[in-house]
Amino acid sequence: MIKVAVDAMGGDYAPGEMVAGAVEAVNAKPGIQVFLVGQEQAVVSELSKHTYNKDQIQVVNATEVIATEEPPVNAIRKKKDSSIVVGLNLVKQGEADAFVSAGSSGAILVSGQVIVGRNKGVERPPLAPLIPTEKGVSLLIDCGANVDARASHLAQFAQMGSIYMEHVMGIKNPRVAIVNIGAEEEKGNALVKETFPLLKECKGINFIGSIEAREIPHGGADVIVCEAFVGNVILKLYEGVGATLISMVKGGMMSTLRSKIGALLVKPALRETLKSFDGSQYGGAPLLGLKGLVVKTHGNSKRTEVRNSIIQCVTFKEQDINGKIRQCLDVQNEK
Amino acid sequence: MIKVAVDAMGGDYAPGEMVAGAVEAVNAKPGIQVFLVGQEQAVVSELSKHTYNKDQIQVVNATEVIATEEPPVNAIRKKKDSSIVVGLNLVKQGEADAFVSAGSSGAILVSGQVIVGRNKGVERPPLAPLIPTEKGVSLLIDCGANVDARASHLAQFAQMGSIYMEHVMGIKNPRVAIVNIGAEEEKGNALVKETFPLLKECKGINFIGSIEAREIPHGGADVIVCEAFVGNVILKLYEGVGATLISMVKGGMMSTLRSKIGALLVKPALRETLKSFDGSQYGGAPLLGLKGLVVKTHGNSKRTEVRNSIIQCVTFKEQDINGKIRQCLDVQNEK
Repeated sequence: MIKVAVDAMGGDYAPGEMVAGAVEAVNAKPGIQVFLVGQEQAVVSELSKHTYNKDQIQVVNATEVIATEEPPVNAIRKKKDSSIVVGLNLVKQGEADAFVSAGSSGAILVSGQVIVGRNKGVERPPLAPLIPTEKGVSLLIDCGANVDARASHLAQFAQMGSIYMEHVMGIKNPRVAIVNIGAEEEKGNALVKETFPLLKECKGINFIGSIEAREIPHGGADVIVCEAFVGNVILKLYEGVGATLISMVKGGMMSTLRSKIGALLVKPALRETLKSFDGSQYGGAPLLGLKGLVVKTHGNSKRTEVRNSIIQCVTFKEQDINGKIRQCLDVQNEK
Repeated sequence: MIKVAVDAMGGDYAPGEMVAGAVEAVNAKPGIQVFLVGQEQAVVSELSKHTYNKDQIQVVNATEVIATEEPPVNAIRKKKDSSIVVGLNLVKQGEADAFVSAGSSGAILVSGQVIVGRNKGVERPPLAPLIPTEKGVSLLIDCGANVDARASHLAQFAQMGSIYMEHVMGIKNPRVAIVNIGAEEEKGNALVKETFPLLKECKGINFIGSIEAREIPHGGADVIVCEAFVGNVILKLYEGVGATLISMVKGGMMSTLRSKIGALLVKPALRETLKSFDGSQYGGAPLLGLKGLVVKTHGNSKRTEVRNSIIQCVTFKEQDINGKIRQCLDVQNEK
């Protein structure tokens, strides 16, 4: 029986969509249990709107909520009874295998490390969102957890990301590449030049060399390794350019009478196409390298992303990703 | 009389489109002279296809061509009679005010510094492309010239970029922002944290703080300051996400009979809209901070971008941007 704690209070649409996502997950997967962590009354009231197997969902009361704008370290120290702190303690105590939250990224990253703790051998736990590409989805690792990372951290990111893509996303022998400003090995900044030979030596990964940012949306690699500052820029620019272009396309379609008629005809097909360029259907971003699993979903995530994130946790546990990470890093350290 | 040297041999569509762009520029601007630098016979043969004022275009023979994949330093040392080296020497000797090329970025960046030399007070010359936004265009500075830059370099980029946007692009009191992973001052990596206070102190710029990558396509700032690695990632991802989404939209429109009919109706309006998201209409990327002006256009640039880049050089010279940069950095250094 796999147990997932869900932050019922985090995110723009909490608790409604978080609760709905949990219900959809247990209805889809009979073998799991979900703890909905949050203000009991609010959560119970949302739950009463749904039909589900009562044995599979349990409400865990947490009276406080950490707001997105609160300084993370302070927030987790002061708000011991917040949904994030209570939920992560369930993972620490082994009562839950994983924790899913759409709440404050900062608080989740900090308290994931502080409360749950790092898996053996892991230097830094990276946040690794899935980003949509023409061909499917790629893992962008790291994307916010560790600025000013070192080369050895990036090498571990490559290993952990590779294990995740192979065993959770089912991509055989995933192609690992490092984000660079040119395709040649001698290109790059100091960090990339130092990391490149480490990745070449890395056992157990399929390192294909550098990837230029232009090739990322084309699906040029399955695991995209970079330090957190660059990863954050990539993730946010992806969203920004996507949103801008789609709004411009919509605006263009509404600009003349002729195009308005065309828009009506084009709309259903276009909606299908653009859905495939929406990463949230794959679930949230795992914070890899911890003793349990912590998954950060988008702040604006709705029930589908929440459901998929919970199911992602099930695969993570079933595939014993943390065991595989320990084994992989052990082999590396013994060399 | 403003004189612009144009690399007739660089770029995917050379010499045809380079020559055509030069012809369009002199036909639009009577007060300029263009030197077309390249293999004389090929250039003259292209020129013979056009009608223009013969006094305004002169062919300067250069027998060699530097290929994109050649290591830059080696190439400019060995190929003394290449169009890039000959063209930049025209700027060095004061025979031309500016040089425009769609050729090897590496060779242009290196030889711009080595042959033309830096303007007084400039520590590092940044490459600063214009990127399209919802509201118009922003200057991304630096974008490839200097990896592992220091905070003082970034402060100069902000000053030079601000002068360029105000006096070449005509944006009053341009908003300057630094690329960061959060909006708050305490966010960022070591370089950003060191640069932030320098930008706050910087006289003569309108520093508005951090910009997250998500806000760049929305036109959140006019001058986007970052170090070259991040700038290169932004520039290339912009192109990559844009190209992918537009091709997916086109694909979606062609997926059903209904949508195909809609596409026919939508097409003219959409073409207009997407044209406004095409940076090449504004010209190429200036390599700022040199004694003359060097402009790098896209490798795949056609006549319109070449013409606009030449006209950009005219404004640059007329507005005495290099004088303004010297004056601005002098004031800074005297403090």
